[in-house]
Amino acid sequence: MPVSLNHIGIAVSHLPEIQKLFSLLGLNVGHTEPVPEQGVTTHFIPLPRVDTALELLEVTDPVGTVAKFIDKRGPGIHHLSFIVGKGELDALCQKLRSAQVRLIYDAPKAGAHRMRINFIHPGSAGGILIELMEPQA
Amino acid sequence: MPVSLNHIGIAVSHLPEIQKLFSLLGLNVGHTEPVPEQGVTTHFIPLPRVDTALELLEVTDPVGTVAKFIDKRGPGIHHLSFIVGKGELDALCQKLRSAQVRLIYDAPKAGAHRMRINFIHPGSAGGILIELMEPQA
Repeated sequence: MPVSLNHIGIAVSHLPEIQKLFSLLGLNVGHTEPVPEQGVTTHFIPLPRVDTALELLEVTDPVGTVAKFIDKRGPGIHHLSFIVGKGELDALCQKLRSAQVRLIYDAPKAGAHRMRINFIHPGSAGGILIELMEPQA
Repeated sequence: MPVSLNHIGIAVSHLPEIQKLFSLLGLNVGHTEPVPEQGVTTHFIPLPRVDTALELLEVTDPVGTVAKFIDKRGPGIHHLSFIVGKGELDALCQKLRSAQVRLIYDAPKAGAHRMRINFIHPGSAGGILIELMEPQA
């Protein structure tokens, strides 16, 4: 039997900031529970139940962005990728910019699998690189 | 509309090692595709479709493990948590140890939500801290 993904644990230094960011993405805390033996309070944000995957990024360009990430931080989790409904990406990017959230691209770019993509800068997302993808027509 | 998690991107330095580890967990690569413009080849591992969540870890103990993680690496993704079927954790840990995979605890501990838990050491998992949870009776 394969194991099932239960949750993604995120170490937070400024809780209101990251809660606000996820709220802009339509994702809100549903349950809060102290776990004193681990020195944390946990805040769970349930995610919509959809097909999801791990994407292993094998470096082919030794000076590309993933190679640089590994050089700087070592291998490990690089980004979280979320999908938005068709036609919703531009309005979401506008909403994020209005809330002073920094995006990587000025305008979404064409990505693999006929997706339009942009990224939220880790500096606006508690250290997480967040990809936003929209299916193209 | 909330956004939906599409995938978790993982920067890999030794592909066969991490493929072997996930294979021991019952998770296998289903699709491989070069993305030359990003300097990577991507290997997708589909995950079983289940309810999942983000777990925001708010530090309450300034010398706890999560506080130390933030001090060392900054805030961001801390771990991936997978759930195994009831009664399957001990056999899985044994299988992992037989394959020279390093676990954090010698024996699973009682965690929150009536779970038994252990962790795969990031040194055996391409830099990712992986939690394994089993529901208790």
